[in-house]
Amino acid sequence: MQIALALYRPFTALDLVGGYQVFSTWPDTEIVLVAETLEPIWDDRGAMAFTPTATFADVATPDVVMVPGSGRPFESLTDEALLTWLRTTAPTATWITSVCSGSGLLATAGLLEGRRATTHWAYREVLEQMGVDVVAERWVFDGNVVTGAGVTAGIDMALALTARQFGDHVAKVTQLALEYDPAPPFAGGTKETSEPAVVEAAYIAVAEATGIIPPNG
Amino acid sequence: MQIALALYRPFTALDLVGGYQVFSTWPDTEIVLVAETLEPIWDDRGAMAFTPTATFADVATPDVVMVPGSGRPFESLTDEALLTWLRTTAPTATWITSVCSGSGLLATAGLLEGRRATTHWAYREVLEQMGVDVVAERWVFDGNVVTGAGVTAGIDMALALTARQFGDHVAKVTQLALEYDPAPPFAGGTKETSEPAVVEAAYIAVAEATGIIPPNG
Repeated sequence: MQIALALYRPFTALDLVGGYQVFSTWPDTEIVLVAETLEPIWDDRGAMAFTPTATFADVATPDVVMVPGSGRPFESLTDEALLTWLRTTAPTATWITSVCSGSGLLATAGLLEGRRATTHWAYREVLEQMGVDVVAERWVFDGNVVTGAGVTAGIDMALALTARQFGDHVAKVTQLALEYDPAPPFAGGTKETSEPAVVEAAYIAVAEATGIIPPNG
Repeated sequence: MQIALALYRPFTALDLVGGYQVFSTWPDTEIVLVAETLEPIWDDRGAMAFTPTATFADVATPDVVMVPGSGRPFESLTDEALLTWLRTTAPTATWITSVCSGSGLLATAGLLEGRRATTHWAYREVLEQMGVDVVAERWVFDGNVVTGAGVTAGIDMALALTARQFGDHVAKVTQLALEYDPAPPFAGGTKETSEPAVVEAAYIAVAEATGIIPPNG
């Protein structure tokens, strides 16, 4: 089994590493960090560089594809090398997955037509405008496409996929090995569960970074 | 403010990146990945290399120190370059933090004497044998030392520290920006909350990888 995690400029580190850590427990599995070239790629915060271990040309038929999101999600929507690789690997992949705004890259590649999918809460309207049936869930299976919500949801998405692939017992053991018994310091954490003042402040912070226009302006 | 995330052979990627992603939202803050040299360091799964952005010699007085854990935690307990750096930076650091078995490195460096701390559930007995007052909590503050439980707990620990440093509102906004409204696929996720068969299987998996001997043999 080969799992290919797509890198591009500028992705979010935790989107990548949450899913990676879960997938790294899969038996008899090679994980490759794949990008257009082997040049190191800085994350969207600019403080951590990741080195691809294979190029798009090297990895033609991965069993699992995962594309992380980005704190500046519009910049990569014209990344033709990435989009072409997503399109060419999708027909033979067993699972096509994304985290956060990575679903916008799947949509732009034409892989979410007529599908239900999720994304970061602040990116839902953008994904809807791409013609996707967007749902506010932590992760969504639609056929062989599995999408996760924002950033940290890559952990949950990858655990859910582990259960689908290897059964509940294996996924529970993985969850325990990673001590994933989360205790967020606060209630909230997504748009529907956070206080209005927190949502407003987060929209302002996200809008400044990304250019996403909040639905209410 | 300078936050120094310590790299060593062989650390766990998500231990590092969970806390990193939270800290990356702190205002006016420089984050450095610090190690003995600038050589890339592979994580404990061997599939992802991280490049230090500074050496221990470059970073003498960070405001925050974070040391991740490892899937092979015994290998680094004799890493004198790392231990010396922890000892020399601790007296001037505002916060000294760890994730997972990283608390064993703090203990070995002499920084947990007489302190309450937490660690990965499978490493608790090891840390107790180091003379630490080990508690089964997701994160623990004791003075200026903040320890997190296994792997994924770095997210919770760093959010709790964000609240202590900047107040609850800022931490809630960060939690929402990272969409940290976790929905693990299964109940469980730590020793006390998992089914006995899952705990047994996880102990076997952890013991094979780490050499940790389960308390009941």
